Amino acid sequence: MKKSDVIQRYIPTKTPLPKEHVEVFAPSNIALCKYWGKRDKELNLPINASLSISLGQLGSRTSLQPIDAAEDQVLLNDLSVDNSQSFAAKIIAYLDLFRTADSPRIRVETNNNIPTAAGLASSASGFAALIKAIDQLYGYALEPQVMSAFARMGSGSASRSLFDGFVQWHMGVREDGMDSYAELLPAQWPEFRLGLLTLTEAEKAVGSRAGMQRTLETAHLYQSWPLQAAADLEKLRSAIDDRDFHRLGQTAEQNALSMHATMIASWPPLLYWQPESVATMQQIWQLRESGIDLYFTMDAGPNIKLLFTADQQQAVEQAFPEVQVIAPFANA
Amino acid sequence: MKKSDVIQRYIPTKTPLPKEHVEVFAPSNIALCKYWGKRDKELNLPINASLSISLGQLGSRTSLQPIDAAEDQVLLNDLSVDNSQSFAAKIIAYLDLFRTADSPRIRVETNNNIPTAAGLASSASGFAALIKAIDQLYGYALEPQVMSAFARMGSGSASRSLFDGFVQWHMGVREDGMDSYAELLPAQWPEFRLGLLTLTEAEKAVGSRAGMQRTLETAHLYQSWPLQAAADLEKLRSAIDDRDFHRLGQTAEQNALSMHATMIASWPPLLYWQPESVATMQQIWQLRESGIDLYFTMDAGPNIKLLFTADQQQAVEQAFPEVQVIAPFANA
Repeated sequence: MKKSDVIQRYIPTKTPLPKEHVEVFAPSNIALCKYWGKRDKELNLPINASLSISLGQLGSRTSLQPIDAAEDQVLLNDLSVDNSQSFAAKIIAYLDLFRTADSPRIRVETNNNIPTAAGLASSASGFAALIKAIDQLYGYALEPQVMSAFARMGSGSASRSLFDGFVQWHMGVREDGMDSYAELLPAQWPEFRLGLLTLTEAEKAVGSRAGMQRTLETAHLYQSWPLQAAADLEKLRSAIDDRDFHRLGQTAEQNALSMHATMIASWPPLLYWQPESVATMQQIWQLRESGIDLYFTMDAGPNIKLLFTADQQQAVEQAFPEVQVIAPFANA
Repeated sequence: MKKSDVIQRYIPTKTPLPKEHVEVFAPSNIALCKYWGKRDKELNLPINASLSISLGQLGSRTSLQPIDAAEDQVLLNDLSVDNSQSFAAKIIAYLDLFRTADSPRIRVETNNNIPTAAGLASSASGFAALIKAIDQLYGYALEPQVMSAFARMGSGSASRSLFDGFVQWHMGVREDGMDSYAELLPAQWPEFRLGLLTLTEAEKAVGSRAGMQRTLETAHLYQSWPLQAAADLEKLRSAIDDRDFHRLGQTAEQNALSMHATMIASWPPLLYWQPESVATMQQIWQLRESGIDLYFTMDAGPNIKLLFTADQQQAVEQAFPEVQVIAPFANA
């Protein structure tokens, strides 16, 4: 099914007159139960449900402004991006889903305060901010679930970046994907901490989209992934309900390592780890053996995200002086 | 079922008078389709069939000699080993399976010319040599399949070290395990080469026996392993039949990485890799992209075993000056 066919059912046939200027923010998010594998590549429908924690003030701030020009203008972190570049082309293609050719062109300004070198995908917060801004620009007042499903069509994990705190993205079963949206889990956990470690800034050779596809097509072990993810998601939900950090940390770390295991079992092998990744994992395991309650998660890249609680922050900062600590519920 | 109960069915009730001195050799072996997971811990019965290549002149030379003493004597590489140490205790317990208490004690001398630091298990060639020596010592003249099954009871992969060249270890289905033995595959492949790289001599924290068990009990992804191993074994057999080195190399590398993937997906995580392991894998993949026909395999340790053919030997030695090259069919 085509994105535009799904979206047309939720927006007016005639593109509304846009507002003069809108500006929104959406947070980045880190999955504790990973999204790995698509059942529909066009609509970014996942093979498994996932669960994330949003990063509070870290994310994308996006403004939209109709302009009297023949072409859209895209700026990223105050720098103009040529419309032929993939970053701008994706945004423009997404805007086109919501407007007709005679509707005004748009100036899109996005500022990310995410340390992208730490392996945080800016596409999640980027597309979440973009759909929020589009919704305001045209005055749609879309339901949160619809907006999340639309964000998903831009980038799968963007569905989760529309909310703060813990978020669950339902896999859904419908062909049009409109039951595959994210929802806020109401739990507050003020002591919860994330730590970002930038081990290497090397560009990854294979993007997530291609990586998922290769895993799905070539890794025998991937067959066990959907069931594991479903079980992990339930464990994470109960750990959040019980504020059981050990269960949460263990489940998230094993989930991330299992996702990487499916990549490693692919052909050609997909190893996102660098030597520093292995050294850091070994360091974390040693710290844990010495009594520090510290776990980690990793996405499709070499960098490591630490999971701990406020009482361990000093020990974590001592072990990793370069860590950037995030308190996702700081403004709760 | 107990080892002794199985063995008693194949040897005389009364221990024969031993010969004065026997000396035998058994090669080490490297699995191209790995043995990972036991269906019976007492008899070392595997969850999957496996396929290996024996290492020619690299292995264990063992001599047995009855002695007039109250206790057995065990020597490893010309050094006396105390009978309370695990190495000697395992050998003595194995000898006891074949003799009564009134039978003479035995002096066991084993010399390994295997670079054990390269992560080659000496237990495979060690128990293969031991059962060959026991067979001669007591004049049993056991059938090769029975001898292989007996070697398996000492150490699973020892079942494969009774033969030169390519060897398949059948998983078997019987409770007594006597259909779980290794057999020689008759193929000769004179151009086949292995390269041993010693990346680190660090002792591994978790032995294979405990590692398999942890994987089996905690890694969801392990569920897919037995079917993958069965498929890989068939691919390897056809690659050997067709002398198709690419198919063999690809299958062996993916099989080894998939085994490591099941370990990585275990809890607590089992990561046998060191930072150097990752750096070397990346180097191998770069060499392959540059046109060198080079693959690798890894066992439950950090070191890497290269797979290539004679025409690539010069390029491999240039990239890895410290490599120890083995031609398994040199004396064929």
